[in-house]
Amino acid sequence: MSQQTVTPADITARALASFDACESPRLKELLQALVRHLHAFATEVELTQAEWEQAIGILTATGDITTDQRQEFILWSDTLGLSMLVDAMANPSPPGATESTVLGPFHIDGSIPRTYGESIAERPGGSPTWFSGHVRSLDGSPIAGARLDVWQNDETVNLYPVQDPDAPEQHLRGLFETRDDGSYAFLALRPTDYTIPEDGPVGAMIAATGRHAWRPAHLHLIASAPGHRSVVTHFFDARSPHLDSDVVFAVKPSLVRPLVHHPAGDPDAPPGVDGEWWSCETDVVLVPEA
Amino acid sequence: MSQQTVTPADITARALASFDACESPRLKELLQALVRHLHAFATEVELTQAEWEQAIGILTATGDITTDQRQEFILWSDTLGLSMLVDAMANPSPPGATESTVLGPFHIDGSIPRTYGESIAERPGGSPTWFSGHVRSLDGSPIAGARLDVWQNDETVNLYPVQDPDAPEQHLRGLFETRDDGSYAFLALRPTDYTIPEDGPVGAMIAATGRHAWRPAHLHLIASAPGHRSVVTHFFDARSPHLDSDVVFAVKPSLVRPLVHHPAGDPDAPPGVDGEWWSCETDVVLVPEA
Repeated sequence: MSQQTVTPADITARALASFDACESPRLKELLQALVRHLHAFATEVELTQAEWEQAIGILTATGDITTDQRQEFILWSDTLGLSMLVDAMANPSPPGATESTVLGPFHIDGSIPRTYGESIAERPGGSPTWFSGHVRSLDGSPIAGARLDVWQNDETVNLYPVQDPDAPEQHLRGLFETRDDGSYAFLALRPTDYTIPEDGPVGAMIAATGRHAWRPAHLHLIASAPGHRSVVTHFFDARSPHLDSDVVFAVKPSLVRPLVHHPAGDPDAPPGVDGEWWSCETDVVLVPEA
Repeated sequence: MSQQTVTPADITARALASFDACESPRLKELLQALVRHLHAFATEVELTQAEWEQAIGILTATGDITTDQRQEFILWSDTLGLSMLVDAMANPSPPGATESTVLGPFHIDGSIPRTYGESIAERPGGSPTWFSGHVRSLDGSPIAGARLDVWQNDETVNLYPVQDPDAPEQHLRGLFETRDDGSYAFLALRPTDYTIPEDGPVGAMIAATGRHAWRPAHLHLIASAPGHRSVVTHFFDARSPHLDSDVVFAVKPSLVRPLVHHPAGDPDAPPGVDGEWWSCETDVVLVPEA
């Protein structure tokens, strides 16, 4: 019998060839590219069997901690920059359009419609922040009836309501429509910097590599309007100390917003606001569909 | 505010730089290479957001089906050729040594010691097959007291005993030691071609890409001896129709063995064998530790 040895390159060639008969050209392209890059990674770093076993253990632990409420695989994609890379390829923005960024794991379907100027806070606490502006098309024309789906975390507990069993069902989220002149406004809270979940395999990676787990404070929104591409994005608080080191790489310079401080007793305070408050006036610019 | 856009290359650069402060040089190397190759893959294929969502769904389903008894992440590694690639890098074999191959998911610790020539079959059925030979060092000298840990599937049900709730506890596995002259022998069954589990995400990939799920028939063994590198390997049945298309790429030419047929009534039949039987005489050659 032959003593011909099988080299690492032979194995890569065989794995690639195993997909030669795949009838879907796109599936074939994806899997052959996956094999090629996966093998190139393992070959370049000379991955050891012990490291391979650790990797299998990490993937298994990632599966174990993932539930309907906790998506650790997405957290890997986010913290390795893959989510933002896919976003950047999918959503190139022409100059002047509101750029996209990650959806994140805390969006919930089923937020309720709210009226112009309404508060999304369903319990006391936090720093009132008035968001207002217009939704416009790329040529600057206002869009009536555009929809804004907004959500944010709660600075009093540093959590998104979906993470907080004590939060009222509709706390800190809502659906708004622009008025006939394209204007929108709502009363939110000042968002706060927070850490991604640190108790799973991703948190262990962050700790072991000397990274930090912080995300800079932001308001989430999905803006949509008939005849326009929807945009999933954030507005980041310009005062966050973590704008340059977002753990999921989601900051784009065009999405950073100054929040203006107003002292207590300001006669322009939104209805129901007695103490100090903040404001952010910003437009959302959507790209017409081709 | 700036309308400077963030390019895919910017995102890759940021993700790489996030590991610059990692204190472990090896961990830094592994994670930066992982990011570089992962981003190169996504960039090359222009991975869409829908495909990214499918990938997250597949990883989640892989976690959901993985249990203590079923390791779907290893099955991905096996069917994409990664397991054999890591094996080939870890275990280069000098000419004449028994080459390694995958461990596979069906090895169980705690097999019982058995005596020279004993049968590993704990219930009737199957085609008796007499494995015999010597365990030798690379220079040809026999090794006394070398250990062989063997296991195989059952051709009557196409399953490994660990998959078969009706199988006796120690069915088709056992620990053997070589005699003073380095010889070993045991009575096994003729192994059979079988398919990897097809009811999970890996099975769906195999079906969607037009591959088949077969592995060629083989006996598993782990051979070890003091002063020598252990080897995890198979002996493949030369008559298998799947030697050139093993779904996990584990076949090496040097591991293929002819099984010799013996008719019923053969006076050389092993004790207790009445009908036809098979034999395989083969040495196992271990590499001395450096």
